[in-house]
Amino acid sequence: MDLQYILELIGTYFFAVSGALAVQDREHDVFGAGFTGFVTAIGGGSLRDMLLGSYPLAWIADIGFLYTILAGILSTLFFFKFLSRLRKTLLFFDSMGIALFTVLGVEKALNLGVRWEIAAIMGMFSAVMGGVIRDTLTNATPVLFRKEIYATACLAGAFMYLILRNFGVERDINLLVSFFLIIAIRLIAVRYKLSLPKLGWKK
Amino acid sequence: MDLQYILELIGTYFFAVSGALAVQDREHDVFGAGFTGFVTAIGGGSLRDMLLGSYPLAWIADIGFLYTILAGILSTLFFFKFLSRLRKTLLFFDSMGIALFTVLGVEKALNLGVRWEIAAIMGMFSAVMGGVIRDTLTNATPVLFRKEIYATACLAGAFMYLILRNFGVERDINLLVSFFLIIAIRLIAVRYKLSLPKLGWKK
Amino acid sequence: MDLQYILELIGTYFFAVSGALAVQDREHDVFGAGFTGFVTAIGGGSLRDMLLGSYPLAWIADIGFLYTILAGILSTLFFFKFLSRLRKTLLFFDSMGIALFTVLGVEKALNLGVRWEIAAIMGMFSAVMGGVIRDTLTNATPVLFRKEIYATACLAGAFMYLILRNFGVERDINLLVSFFLIIAIRLIAVRYKLSLPKLGWKK
Repeated sequence: MDLQYILELIGTYFFAVSGALAVQDREHDVFGAGFTGFVTAIGGGSLRDMLLGSYPLAWIADIGFLYTILAGILSTLFFFKFLSRLRKTLLFFDSMGIALFTVLGVEKALNLGVRWEIAAIMGMFSAVMGGVIRDTLTNATPVLFRKEIYATACLAGAFMYLILRNFGVERDINLLVSFFLIIAIRLIAVRYKLSLPKLGWKK
Repeated sequence: MDLQYILELIGTYFFAVSGALAVQDREHDVFGAGFTGFVTAIGGGSLRDMLLGSYPLAWIADIGFLYTILAGILSTLFFFKFLSRLRKTLLFFDSMGIALFTVLGVEKALNLGVRWEIAAIMGMFSAVMGGVIRDTLTNATPVLFRKEIYATACLAGAFMYLILRNFGVERDINLLVSFFLIIAIRLIAVRYKLSLPKLGWKK
Repeated sequence: MDLQYILELIGTYFFAVSGALAVQDREHDVFGAGFTGFVTAIGGGSLRDMLLGSYPLAWIADIGFLYTILAGILSTLFFFKFLSRLRKTLLFFDSMGIALFTVLGVEKALNLGVRWEIAAIMGMFSAVMGGVIRDTLTNATPVLFRKEIYATACLAGAFMYLILRNFGVERDINLLVSFFLIIAIRLIAVRYKLSLPKLGWKK
């Protein structure tokens, strides 16, 4: 098993946990938590691949993703008291998840032959759309409308990856730099409560 | 016309009715009711086939589905007073719809060559995702978060089908047994107000 | 560049504006406005093409769409005070957008070999689904449930196009007639506050 595959599974695991935890304040049963964890974990990548017409979808072709999601859901159900105290740890791993999915999503789109602008969008979609679907299902305002700099961090990392690639930087170094740029932007934004300017056009 | 095709049309008809009826307490016009009936009827199967990359979609390839949906919508509009008194009848037919779509969805996924775990999920998706889309459009909490054991019944039936198939049970018998298992679980859950445990992790 | 391509870009531009403007009363940042503008502009056409299995999607194959959307979002952000005074102008261009996307969507579906009933639905989906996704993301009641005759106007135009085509009317004339029928129905409905009958089955 190569490193990329392991990292994808880790990202999938934490997306599943974040989805299953998302229903914690609502009147959902255990199945609802599992369902939400599942669609959070597969949503972003599935949408990216369906938009690109890239079949079969990763989680359908490789059963490892499904069992990773199941592990994420079960560990949430059994350890939710522990996990809910880990709010900051979760923030860190959620950031790792979106950072990882962004750079892997950009790469996958480029390998399918699309232009770099489209690849950047596909990277961002991979990272944030699972959360958007999760929030839509639970009737919450989607995360990318309320959180400190979130999808913007993904876009910034996607562009960094594309720029470094254009300058011929080696893939592994490029992945690492872009990955940590996203995490850094995200964590600094949360730490200092930074956000993009509001529109200020309320009537 | 074979029995399976007729059953698919019947399931589609009742999904269309349940969708068109879903807007009854809101300020929707007749088109809104029809639109909701339509997406409820095609949503689950379409999502399953788009995830699997199986084209053309059934309702696009066979015009019989569209006219069946139209019949479901029109009969809802003309007979809604009668239908709304039939709440229990509708529950029964909705259960028939999800039971049927589950087992047919599992079969279709298996025929496309996916693993049994994926097939079980695809069967459940076929059955419940039309309702999830319906509820998202009408800003209601999705049915699988609020109803008595619902999607779980579909999953149970899907696993029953896969187990019996694995033991070499004849297809027709297998379809019948799995179909009635889903209906039985669903009706018993509603009758005795059974539900899965709540998470109980509200703060 | 042919006329059809230019019209598609114009329609895309105004969908992007309408999406970015949709968040004006909420607590969104500039990225949220841009994201909403983007999904509004690509949503309807993408869903149509994913349902039909027609790849690559137009906005992925032709980068002109992405920059058109970007222009729409940026002009919204810079000129929102001007644009928000242009409510009637926007209504007119939104109507132009749905009218254009309807007839082009019907044509595209017919060219892919589907039946005329399916083509009519695909035309309507192209026109209205971007707005439905926009409204779902912003937790608003979808436009086609609350506005004066909206999707119904698209369906009427789609059927007009199909009827005229069946009678051998030349394509350019057909496009124009169907296009203006949709605009006329929509503007008359708004002017005289016409709507389809409510269901009247509230309990």
